[in-house]
Amino acid sequence: MCQASTNNSFTVKSTSRDTRARGAELVTGHGTIATPAFMPVGTQGTVKTVTPDELRTIGVDMLLGNAYHLYLRPGIESVDKLGGLHKFMGWNGPILTDSGGFQVFSLAGLRRINDAGVVFSSHIDGSEHFLTPELATEAQEKLGADIAMVLDVCHRYDLDLCGAREALELTHRWATRCLKSHERAGQALYAIVQGGTSVELRQESARFLSSLDFSGYAVGGLSIGEPKTVTWAILEKTIDELPVDRPRYFMGLGAPDDIVRAVAGGVDLFDSALPTRVARHGAMFTLDGRRNITNAAYKQYDGPFDLECDCYTCRTFSAAYLHHLFRCEELLAYRLATIHNLRFMVRLMARIRESLADGEFHSFQENFLSRYQPSDEQVRLEQKRKWARSHGNGANV
Amino acid sequence: MCQASTNNSFTVKSTSRDTRARGAELVTGHGTIATPAFMPVGTQGTVKTVTPDELRTIGVDMLLGNAYHLYLRPGIESVDKLGGLHKFMGWNGPILTDSGGFQVFSLAGLRRINDAGVVFSSHIDGSEHFLTPELATEAQEKLGADIAMVLDVCHRYDLDLCGAREALELTHRWATRCLKSHERAGQALYAIVQGGTSVELRQESARFLSSLDFSGYAVGGLSIGEPKTVTWAILEKTIDELPVDRPRYFMGLGAPDDIVRAVAGGVDLFDSALPTRVARHGAMFTLDGRRNITNAAYKQYDGPFDLECDCYTCRTFSAAYLHHLFRCEELLAYRLATIHNLRFMVRLMARIRESLADGEFHSFQENFLSRYQPSDEQVRLEQKRKWARSHGNGANV
Repeated sequence: MCQASTNNSFTVKSTSRDTRARGAELVTGHGTIATPAFMPVGTQGTVKTVTPDELRTIGVDMLLGNAYHLYLRPGIESVDKLGGLHKFMGWNGPILTDSGGFQVFSLAGLRRINDAGVVFSSHIDGSEHFLTPELATEAQEKLGADIAMVLDVCHRYDLDLCGAREALELTHRWATRCLKSHERAGQALYAIVQGGTSVELRQESARFLSSLDFSGYAVGGLSIGEPKTVTWAILEKTIDELPVDRPRYFMGLGAPDDIVRAVAGGVDLFDSALPTRVARHGAMFTLDGRRNITNAAYKQYDGPFDLECDCYTCRTFSAAYLHHLFRCEELLAYRLATIHNLRFMVRLMARIRESLADGEFHSFQENFLSRYQPSDEQVRLEQKRKWARSHGNGANV
Repeated sequence: MCQASTNNSFTVKSTSRDTRARGAELVTGHGTIATPAFMPVGTQGTVKTVTPDELRTIGVDMLLGNAYHLYLRPGIESVDKLGGLHKFMGWNGPILTDSGGFQVFSLAGLRRINDAGVVFSSHIDGSEHFLTPELATEAQEKLGADIAMVLDVCHRYDLDLCGAREALELTHRWATRCLKSHERAGQALYAIVQGGTSVELRQESARFLSSLDFSGYAVGGLSIGEPKTVTWAILEKTIDELPVDRPRYFMGLGAPDDIVRAVAGGVDLFDSALPTRVARHGAMFTLDGRRNITNAAYKQYDGPFDLECDCYTCRTFSAAYLHHLFRCEELLAYRLATIHNLRFMVRLMARIRESLADGEFHSFQENFLSRYQPSDEQVRLEQKRKWARSHGNGANV
């Protein structure tokens, strides 16, 4: 069906004169996608509240799935027997799966970690499980992901340098083992650069991993609570050490302004639960920034939430109706807001790609950022910490 | 747009030789529907989890809305200013609104009742409100319902005869006042027969209300916990007293087997939150009876939940996937099960109407009931009581 020769190929089509941004084509076993691209998060085999048909209508072309969650429920063997993750969830576009590294260190109860792997307890029932680089790779092979990720060691951003070095070295040994054990034809395997907030460790990590033949390179453990100035400084130094002919993936970045900045920094792929998560709390994107639909100003507003938006929600319902659904905690509210935010992300990425093709990314970036009012960083960090606490072992995020 | 001369007209097209069942056409301000018909419940301006587009795709042609809920949120004036209920919720088919009688007596905190009206406290914030027959009528006029209901006095089925008579007489006085104050052109107003479990009171109520010129007649306060044998006996005696040329509506009946029996008893219209509510708990209809998708038997079942069903859910996803979504409490689960149950109801009503047109309703009824395994009555009553208790003043249901 797909040609092994072109699978996972990554072709840069346009570059930005004034930034590191580039437009490219990424070939996967389930179709070719244009980058920079944003992947909505389908944690448990579903992007919360929406169907695969809706995702296609919105214009989403690639999803992220979580091996950790699918391992716990319904189980990797179950998904495998049911024909793999694409068939299971009814999505025939590309899927990238996270290895479970981040979840094991942030969501689950971490028990023991050593060279062999990590013992963790399920965040659902407390049952104990042992995860190794080989098992993480095998799980993603059985899920049938188009892109698999190595198992990495994640830690909080303010871990001391000694601890960060130790974690990094283990991450590197595990990455090597993942690459060695990986055998699914046509499936790409991406490495994950770690190193906390140390520029030196990040550069060392990027250099080491670049010396191995991965199909792509992710930046992990960034935008997890450190100041944004640190985020961008680390990103720049990291990208400089990564091969130009491989896709670069910033794990877990999802705020529209952050994405535009990271594209300028040379990133091709993004994923984040943020657009869908905040949607379920009524926070909806506009080109001026996030607005909360539960705000009293919308109670009698008969027009669409966002006049500039062409999503199903804005075309079909008034802001007043959406406001009402949220105030009544109606389940339909969460879906309608999710559709809006995902459509916003899809159009944002399309505009980014167009501006790259037209050689006008830099001015797009300036225009976008001059208008988009970022969510207050303190508010954002607090939200992130709250989320982490409510999802288990927050100390690790 | 619609001709006042034909609005609310009801034309019997076919009758069943062996039962009281009939097929008819009901003209409303938002289109003509074929009866017997089932109305999904859109309590707060939405049929929980689904969009109006989905309802149309499923084949739903008429909805029920709740004046009580819309009165509390977003407020009748709000809906009125936003163009009425149809525009507000994006549904351009017929809508029948409940007057709030049932909710005031079951859901809200009942404070005082006298000839003038009823003082109740909101189940949301405890605020006190005064509802009269005139206000209930005016509210439904402002909502722009195609069919409005009179304000009635509801009580538990085992109220003593003296209490039931008192409630009935007040119901009759209120019905008369609703009819007198009703002025919205093109909107139908239906009366509600009450009388508890007394055949005599029920007959008296049906006769009295039939002497007034209502566009249709509902049976209220039935199937609220009394034994099923009582339900059917009361229904038969009531229907006998109602005019044959007006639609008959059994309020709150939603179990498929009950509906088939009530159609045989001469009922034309039904509403119930049951199909959508039990769907959200994983109980899905089949021609063999309800099945719970969370049952372990579905964990590895790769086929559709119901091979005989043509709904979006059954055409698109495996039972194993649905099972997984429910086990993970994913919001998508509730929508997919709702779509299935509503489609089941739509097809059931279509089959009933076809069998009536073909003069074969009696054999349809026999075949359907011989196969459909009813939910255990004790289980059902217990569920109903639990629901009533969790929704406020259960003693009134």
